[in-house]
Amino acid sequence: MTYPRVALIGLGLIASSMAHAMRAGGLAGEIVGYARSAETRAVARALFCDRVTETAAEAVEGADLVVLAVPVGAMGAIAAEIGPHLKPGATVTDVGSVKQAVVDAVAPHLPAGVHFIPGHPMAGTEYSGPRSGFATLFQNRWWLLTPPEGCDAGALARLRGLIEAMGAKVDTMDAGHHDLVVAVVSHVPHAIAYTMVGVADHMRRVSQSEVIKYSAAGFRDFTRIAASDPTMWRDVFLTNKEAVLDILGRFAEELFVLQRAIRMGDGEHLHAYFTRTRAIRRGIIEAGQDTAAPDFGRAVTPAQDG
Amino acid sequence: MTYPRVALIGLGLIASSMAHAMRAGGLAGEIVGYARSAETRAVARALFCDRVTETAAEAVEGADLVVLAVPVGAMGAIAAEIGPHLKPGATVTDVGSVKQAVVDAVAPHLPAGVHFIPGHPMAGTEYSGPRSGFATLFQNRWWLLTPPEGCDAGALARLRGLIEAMGAKVDTMDAGHHDLVVAVVSHVPHAIAYTMVGVADHMRRVSQSEVIKYSAAGFRDFTRIAASDPTMWRDVFLTNKEAVLDILGRFAEELFVLQRAIRMGDGEHLHAYFTRTRAIRRGIIEAGQDTAAPDFGRAVTPAQDG
Repeated sequence: MTYPRVALIGLGLIASSMAHAMRAGGLAGEIVGYARSAETRAVARALFCDRVTETAAEAVEGADLVVLAVPVGAMGAIAAEIGPHLKPGATVTDVGSVKQAVVDAVAPHLPAGVHFIPGHPMAGTEYSGPRSGFATLFQNRWWLLTPPEGCDAGALARLRGLIEAMGAKVDTMDAGHHDLVVAVVSHVPHAIAYTMVGVADHMRRVSQSEVIKYSAAGFRDFTRIAASDPTMWRDVFLTNKEAVLDILGRFAEELFVLQRAIRMGDGEHLHAYFTRTRAIRRGIIEAGQDTAAPDFGRAVTPAQDG
Repeated sequence: MTYPRVALIGLGLIASSMAHAMRAGGLAGEIVGYARSAETRAVARALFCDRVTETAAEAVEGADLVVLAVPVGAMGAIAAEIGPHLKPGATVTDVGSVKQAVVDAVAPHLPAGVHFIPGHPMAGTEYSGPRSGFATLFQNRWWLLTPPEGCDAGALARLRGLIEAMGAKVDTMDAGHHDLVVAVVSHVPHAIAYTMVGVADHMRRVSQSEVIKYSAAGFRDFTRIAASDPTMWRDVFLTNKEAVLDILGRFAEELFVLQRAIRMGDGEHLHAYFTRTRAIRRGIIEAGQDTAAPDFGRAVTPAQDG
């Protein structure tokens, strides 16, 4: 057992998956949960929490590990509420997709003697809520930790042990660098997917039913991305604004170069560009982040193209 | 048996999958193949063609169905070469992702008495070449046909019969409308995916290895799209220029609105926008174009998020 008592604040996809994984591995003595919605608390009590409480303050009483699993924009208020009730020596972590904004919002509210180790499990589905979790969500996925300077080595090792026991791989880095990396590999791709789905939604000459009926690989993958939780993504874009706007600016420039090549009929440019992008894909397959199988395991609906 | 003799011109993913499907279903008496590369011809002869020829003209001699499965930019030259050798009453179809440009390039070279019925199988993987085909590629996928006005009803019914026997669903529409629909659901999403992968490739502060290592759902799906055949996609963008530039322009406008909302910190706008895009995704799942399973069958590597 890694922690005698774990408090989960917020009981959505990530927290419920953590609870299932901790129970499956016998990693926590007691799992206490809190969520704002009474309905969510009832589901959590029935499915994966030993105990749920009416307030966040109650939930963290005596907890050895507190996990903040609420949208990034709600972290500061929760931290202010639980700060005075934390057990001395407890570890507080979070699972937000942005790290510097969470550090800025949460750290001021935590008393000395509590170890704050921000984290980001890079795992999820487009489903949300307490019924969406499952024990294997983190299997073989990255879980980034951004421990502050001077972080207690013992507390860090213990948290890392829990995360690895849930099946994830841990890397540590600086909070600011984390935010730039995820802007490139996740936040801006999501912004773009939302935009493309929005364009299709506005078309008059192509009906909605045609878009849906003939949606091929490109667009279908975009809609999957664009179906993720709206509150979570609103907060991501509001709190990782600087890095997202930097990368979006670069994207717009790059898109205009491609658009110009299409307009000018510059086939050589297009072919060279499309050839280069293949190499990154190969790197991802070699790094084990995806499968090379032609249908990606979609036995029922093979990937479409063209 | 639907056609006594079928000639496949070009022997890549689509043609080889057609050959496997036709053999599996006993749909063709003889399958003759031609490709420019001697190596490709040798593979095709070994894997799925009854006979291969040294020229396209030879391949179409006596064929009841001729399938043009070369890049869109190569269709015109091939049509000029085979035109004089086509059997009277034969049907010619193609599998290009763009239709009006193919009609313009091919139709002038075909003699009277030959039935030209352009087509577009909306199926594929990011793999190409004669070894990449498999018999079930078209299973439950759309195969769009754009028969010209006055098209012979018998020839159309026969071709439709073959396609449906290979497992696909057939719809017919006007070539120009086809090109707009696929610009929205496929061509522009591909252009965007290529662009995002290109941006990541240029970043200095985020290393290539970090991009690859931490690539999450958004970016990983983009690289899959961006790994498709460069020649095919160059030709798509050069030959469906008008519709692609129209949709790209709308996309850029929409992106700037989103970018401005992020810059201004307009959380209400972002939340409303992200909520709207969920509906399209639900429509696609209900239309049976994708699965609702959280991991999309990726048992080994569940979809990532955040």
